[in-house]
Amino acid sequence: MTFDRIGIICKQSGDVRIGATLARLIRFLESRDREILFDTSTIEHLDQTPATPLDRQTLAERADLVIVVGGDGTLLNAVRSLVDAGVPVVGVNLGRLGFLADVSPESMEEHLDRILSGQHYVDTRSLLHASVVRGEQTISDSLALNDVVIHKWDIARMIEYEVSIDGRLLDTQRSDGLIVFTPTGSTAYALSAGGPLVKPGIDILGLVPICPHSLNNRPIVVDGQAVVDVHLRDGHYTQAQITCDGQVNFSLLPGDHIRIRVHAHRARLIHPPDYDYFAILRNKFGWGTHT
Amino acid sequence: MTFDRIGIICKQSGDVRIGATLARLIRFLESRDREILFDTSTIEHLDQTPATPLDRQTLAERADLVIVVGGDGTLLNAVRSLVDAGVPVVGVNLGRLGFLADVSPESMEEHLDRILSGQHYVDTRSLLHASVVRGEQTISDSLALNDVVIHKWDIARMIEYEVSIDGRLLDTQRSDGLIVFTPTGSTAYALSAGGPLVKPGIDILGLVPICPHSLNNRPIVVDGQAVVDVHLRDGHYTQAQITCDGQVNFSLLPGDHIRIRVHAHRARLIHPPDYDYFAILRNKFGWGTHT
Amino acid sequence: MTFDRIGIICKQSGDVRIGATLARLIRFLESRDREILFDTSTIEHLDQTPATPLDRQTLAERADLVIVVGGDGTLLNAVRSLVDAGVPVVGVNLGRLGFLADVSPESMEEHLDRILSGQHYVDTRSLLHASVVRGEQTISDSLALNDVVIHKWDIARMIEYEVSIDGRLLDTQRSDGLIVFTPTGSTAYALSAGGPLVKPGIDILGLVPICPHSLNNRPIVVDGQAVVDVHLRDGHYTQAQITCDGQVNFSLLPGDHIRIRVHAHRARLIHPPDYDYFAILRNKFGWGTHT
Amino acid sequence: MTFDRIGIICKQSGDVRIGATLARLIRFLESRDREILFDTSTIEHLDQTPATPLDRQTLAERADLVIVVGGDGTLLNAVRSLVDAGVPVVGVNLGRLGFLADVSPESMEEHLDRILSGQHYVDTRSLLHASVVRGEQTISDSLALNDVVIHKWDIARMIEYEVSIDGRLLDTQRSDGLIVFTPTGSTAYALSAGGPLVKPGIDILGLVPICPHSLNNRPIVVDGQAVVDVHLRDGHYTQAQITCDGQVNFSLLPGDHIRIRVHAHRARLIHPPDYDYFAILRNKFGWGTHT
Repeated sequence: MTFDRIGIICKQSGDVRIGATLARLIRFLESRDREILFDTSTIEHLDQTPATPLDRQTLAERADLVIVVGGDGTLLNAVRSLVDAGVPVVGVNLGRLGFLADVSPESMEEHLDRILSGQHYVDTRSLLHASVVRGEQTISDSLALNDVVIHKWDIARMIEYEVSIDGRLLDTQRSDGLIVFTPTGSTAYALSAGGPLVKPGIDILGLVPICPHSLNNRPIVVDGQAVVDVHLRDGHYTQAQITCDGQVNFSLLPGDHIRIRVHAHRARLIHPPDYDYFAILRNKFGWGTHT
Repeated sequence: MTFDRIGIICKQSGDVRIGATLARLIRFLESRDREILFDTSTIEHLDQTPATPLDRQTLAERADLVIVVGGDGTLLNAVRSLVDAGVPVVGVNLGRLGFLADVSPESMEEHLDRILSGQHYVDTRSLLHASVVRGEQTISDSLALNDVVIHKWDIARMIEYEVSIDGRLLDTQRSDGLIVFTPTGSTAYALSAGGPLVKPGIDILGLVPICPHSLNNRPIVVDGQAVVDVHLRDGHYTQAQITCDGQVNFSLLPGDHIRIRVHAHRARLIHPPDYDYFAILRNKFGWGTHT
Repeated sequence: MTFDRIGIICKQSGDVRIGATLARLIRFLESRDREILFDTSTIEHLDQTPATPLDRQTLAERADLVIVVGGDGTLLNAVRSLVDAGVPVVGVNLGRLGFLADVSPESMEEHLDRILSGQHYVDTRSLLHASVVRGEQTISDSLALNDVVIHKWDIARMIEYEVSIDGRLLDTQRSDGLIVFTPTGSTAYALSAGGPLVKPGIDILGLVPICPHSLNNRPIVVDGQAVVDVHLRDGHYTQAQITCDGQVNFSLLPGDHIRIRVHAHRARLIHPPDYDYFAILRNKFGWGTHT
Repeated sequence: MTFDRIGIICKQSGDVRIGATLARLIRFLESRDREILFDTSTIEHLDQTPATPLDRQTLAERADLVIVVGGDGTLLNAVRSLVDAGVPVVGVNLGRLGFLADVSPESMEEHLDRILSGQHYVDTRSLLHASVVRGEQTISDSLALNDVVIHKWDIARMIEYEVSIDGRLLDTQRSDGLIVFTPTGSTAYALSAGGPLVKPGIDILGLVPICPHSLNNRPIVVDGQAVVDVHLRDGHYTQAQITCDGQVNFSLLPGDHIRIRVHAHRARLIHPPDYDYFAILRNKFGWGTHT
């Protein structure tokens, strides 16, 4: 991998730290003679508009590496749109360590220098692909790096659904929702709902219900080849939704069938060579600091 | 307590079992020379409309005892509307044992005979009172027998709030919501969210977050005199709601302040004299039946 | 309450901080013209032995206040031995805030000055009393401020037992053990086993199983008048023990019956007037400090 | 696979059902012209001693298939002793469905007929290998099909240990113990301690602490190539043990180092062709049967 053409994607936000970090990043990349490709998301943070800001798809096809400036949320969005083009991604945060955006502004130049010179850790992450089938038709397709959540949309009632794995019934459940998660998503919403941590790179997907009605439900981890089918029971709720990474929603109807499996392409996250996943867990969860 | 005038409240539903149970109930009460007061909810289940169906308030004032025909949900609704009048309540279910509606149709006459003759167990249950304060004004007051839930209304973001007890800060949390529950509610939504069981009659209220962002949150039980204040942080979410017993909703705005405390009046549930709370738990949770 | 005669109890340990704190404490109490009563536990930390170190029982009877120097463990031990004499207790820690020993050495003189002058918060805590009955005979009686734990003693097998409350069967369980806890103990072992936090002063006791075999077990909170009976099943395990506050053990045999209830006397913990239980929780659990 | 020589291993127990099942099994295998190899464990259940009962090692080397009569515990023991010889195993239970011993006596002949005729499902299960290193020396090696548990041996204190994965620190913990589990073990002790279910066949191992002192610990799943190192802190506890499958114990000392990894050989469990892992979960956990 040589990283000659570098794409930049920024968080969409009024946060003034973004412009400052972006300006430093541009100076740094110019000093290293890299060609910079600007995503349209960068424009609001730039004093002068560069020659041609690119749409996401064109950026994905032309860049050798994409640098995302923002938090984990910005990176989730970027990865979903870049994964099929196969371009690797590095995340620069805005001062607060992310699970994914682990390059901090203060050491950005140092870390990027090592990455551009070929010293880096390549971290392969699986995504989920979710299809909504209504009647005979697939009416929605979406990707998720963290999780696909099928959930009630108002408080009135739980949703009721049947889960099958590879065509075999797992269980029929009533709950506030079901989270299907990747190893990457095991530190996100699934963790709040009681799911286990899963080291990235393991070929699995996990399922954890949200506030299940039955006391004997537990999170379950299945293999990465598994086909997960969720059937929403007819007539048992008013409103349900499917949400990917907490960012993309689609309304569901009773009787809808959702098929979830690991996506065919994997994302590549680029980290500095001393990347330590467990150190990030300790930092984010405060392990070892309290009694 | 002599139960001369008996009010009847029914589940609002097309369920045909209700009419049959109601007809048997009317025959039974007539055979025991009781005066029957019909709530408007009974009309749809009756072949001929009785002289004057009463509105809920009038029923509450005139009846010596109210029999609720339906499930726990119907009883929750009835209790909230009857508690301030002080009229005791007995719950007849539709074939499936409830935590609250514990008289089954097959033994209805036998159980009611004992109850009418003065052999009964009086079960005192606390309710919660919740006020929503916006700016300087109280804009909503509501009661709950199970729980008051302050929760996000869409998936996009967690809600962020500060909880104080008796004017002292407990914690600042981010979560999908906060459940404040009575002992009665400890077998309901709070249990799905990880709360403890609490034997009814204990003068406490409990708090349990829904899918909290921090890993070190835990349910907490405080005394029944406690004043719980929840302040929704400004600008940290899009939509929140307060919901009582899963039945009554009210939309919240950032900056709203919700005050929750045990209600001044307690409800009286009337059970057959051999009422056994633990037996109901074992039955409902399947304790002792699986390996 | 006037505190003229002050007893001192120290942690039994080679920790050199104890001697230093003890010396400061003695100087302080002498400067305030208090009579000091030395427990035998203080001797190892004193350069010169005071006139007459007292046994615990005599100390309890003569002192108006007992100051405990050590951690929560030392205070648990002291309270169990002092509760029946009714003497109040204050806990001075060794630099690390305790749930119970909340006066820190650096501010010891300041806090004790306020306490001796009558500015203090009196915190009433319930204890548990546990009796072991074998055949017809009570063969052991013990007290606990935190918890009574009935647990297996080796790894080979779970213990199996029946729990009744006020003579009514709650459940039959298989687990590594059962923790019966006070509100004070809700921040101790019970919390590690999944129990709820309970604000001290509430008249309840709680039960939580340790690693229960059934998935549908949950912690339960019952009223402070409850009589909890635990019957160890005959022939279902090799070795079991009862342990109070993690400090006092007694071996159990199959068929033993353990009766646990709230002890008749309550302990009085004395705190500085600005005592804030929730602030201690936030400090100890790191609430609000991590993402 | 042709199954000509069939070894038989029985539960060591006075249970009379074993002899009856064993007699039927022998008649069946004789009727199918199979050579039967008797493990020494079968002798106590046989009326007349067969020519030469074999020790476990010889049985493992000579048999084409081993039938285990007993429960999951008997099968765990058998698999550990047979795995390195590569002989497949089928489990006949004594009337109560096991997670592993899934052939029931009432349909034994029918199921075995299908298995002997080549209609079967081969279920590959990983084991753990645990070494205890004291100073420079490995003083113990053991296998586990379910779990390796490092745990305190008396109630007095928690154990304190450092966990590393592939040479990188994961965390330092205080708890009652640490369970390292296989997918097979995910339905055993790990589940009681809060671990997730993991479908067998996935190449992972899991870690879950028992009653951890910190509130922010969570179960973690790592890849099957992981080398897990647990260092017991010096001087922080009195007694600790390592236990494999709840059956084999070894005493530990402060400073001991335990290395755990997936064992080089995998076990092969033979099931009837309609084997359904999820159906076993539903049956054992009572999914779908309670409200």
